[in-house]
Amino acid sequence: MRSEPIQILALAGLPEVIARDDVGSLILRAVKENAFVMAAGDVFVIAQKIISKAEGRTVSLDSIEPSQKAAKWAADYKKDPRLIELVLREAKRIVRMERGVIVAETSHGFICANAGVDASNVAEGTALLLPEDPDRSARALHDQLTAALGVSLGVIVSDTFGRPWREGLVNVALGVAGISPLLDYRGQRDTSGKLLSATVIAIADEIASAAELVMGKTSRTPVAIVRGLPTSDDSGSGRDLMRAPQIDIFR
Amino acid sequence: MRSEPIQILALAGLPEVIARDDVGSLILRAVKENAFVMAAGDVFVIAQKIISKAEGRTVSLDSIEPSQKAAKWAADYKKDPRLIELVLREAKRIVRMERGVIVAETSHGFICANAGVDASNVAEGTALLLPEDPDRSARALHDQLTAALGVSLGVIVSDTFGRPWREGLVNVALGVAGISPLLDYRGQRDTSGKLLSATVIAIADEIASAAELVMGKTSRTPVAIVRGLPTSDDSGSGRDLMRAPQIDIFR
Repeated sequence: MRSEPIQILALAGLPEVIARDDVGSLILRAVKENAFVMAAGDVFVIAQKIISKAEGRTVSLDSIEPSQKAAKWAADYKKDPRLIELVLREAKRIVRMERGVIVAETSHGFICANAGVDASNVAEGTALLLPEDPDRSARALHDQLTAALGVSLGVIVSDTFGRPWREGLVNVALGVAGISPLLDYRGQRDTSGKLLSATVIAIADEIASAAELVMGKTSRTPVAIVRGLPTSDDSGSGRDLMRAPQIDIFR
Repeated sequence: MRSEPIQILALAGLPEVIARDDVGSLILRAVKENAFVMAAGDVFVIAQKIISKAEGRTVSLDSIEPSQKAAKWAADYKKDPRLIELVLREAKRIVRMERGVIVAETSHGFICANAGVDASNVAEGTALLLPEDPDRSARALHDQLTAALGVSLGVIVSDTFGRPWREGLVNVALGVAGISPLLDYRGQRDTSGKLLSATVIAIADEIASAAELVMGKTSRTPVAIVRGLPTSDDSGSGRDLMRAPQIDIFR
């Protein structure tokens, strides 16, 4: 039996997104221009960057007065003190701050470099914060796209995060709507009939990583479509991918 | 401009792998049975489990004498003391050992749950260790498959790992041959012309995660093919994905 392959399609032709853009409408126009016929279960993976830009999360660095702590760190590691100040303000908790690297927990509960503050692919003298609530952004886009395209779709708002112990960034899911972010094999039996005890796959993160393969970093393809995934139900959200502090042995 | 999508194909029809099987030949037979025509740049993602089985990395738990430490831990958390002993023997260094969870560094340098010792999808009373050298396994399969199929292919030996701070496992690359595991954007400019300072994508991990979407955990599809990736060169190996201890702020 040969199953249909999963496909990862780049959504070409999106314009540069600016504040107050309606990202859903831009995506719908690009879908039309690409002559894509959407199928139920297709998942849109959307880079956090264009959501943040549309939601007005751009900060002018001129408006930021660096604290002494930010100024000292910036001087030590040749960084922009205003950017460091912004990182410290976005950080609910510093996880590591050493050798020029700041890893922090954001107000959402994400643990990532620079508390998610991004200074690449943005206008000079500005920085970009994460969306206020990536699940809410994903849900709104899910509702808009599903209504306009007439099929039930998934939406993932993604960003590239580093990982402890491993080199390189991978794309992960921050906000999720329309699909279940975790695929739970517990209670199922393996091929030898044994109960699978601890196997929960972070499928939304894997979908985000798959999508990144066509999104690239410099090629201005902030949206990809992943097609042909196993059926999922619309349950859960990006929050389900954050390990609860009380069971996290790495806090 | 509409680019060709990336495809993720399940390689159906592989038999259950046992010790001393020639995994390369089994894959070649399945490729033929699926009537797949391989293209240059196609990447085979192969679950560590079948490599380990073929390489005879199955351990009979009856042969293991638990230490006092293993026995106590096993009693505290209702685990098999022989399995815990095996985990402790495979661990070059314990990273966390609390609340029933052991995260350890293996001799290869991987940091993962149970030092990579696997007791699911194996025969009762046995456990499976990671391949001795996943890069060597990947390279041997790369050479065999490339020679037999007449096109230059990539090979990734993968396993599902947990991550600090996030729920669920994702598939990552342990061994890599035929492609470059990291995609380095440093020195390139972003869309606003600014130099990208710290963007290196762990593309082999993203490919492994993409492949997992068709591999499943219980469905006996230990090999997937990812097709249509950006061109890569045969440089580097899975070791490049391990952060060197001296620059790792999470050790």
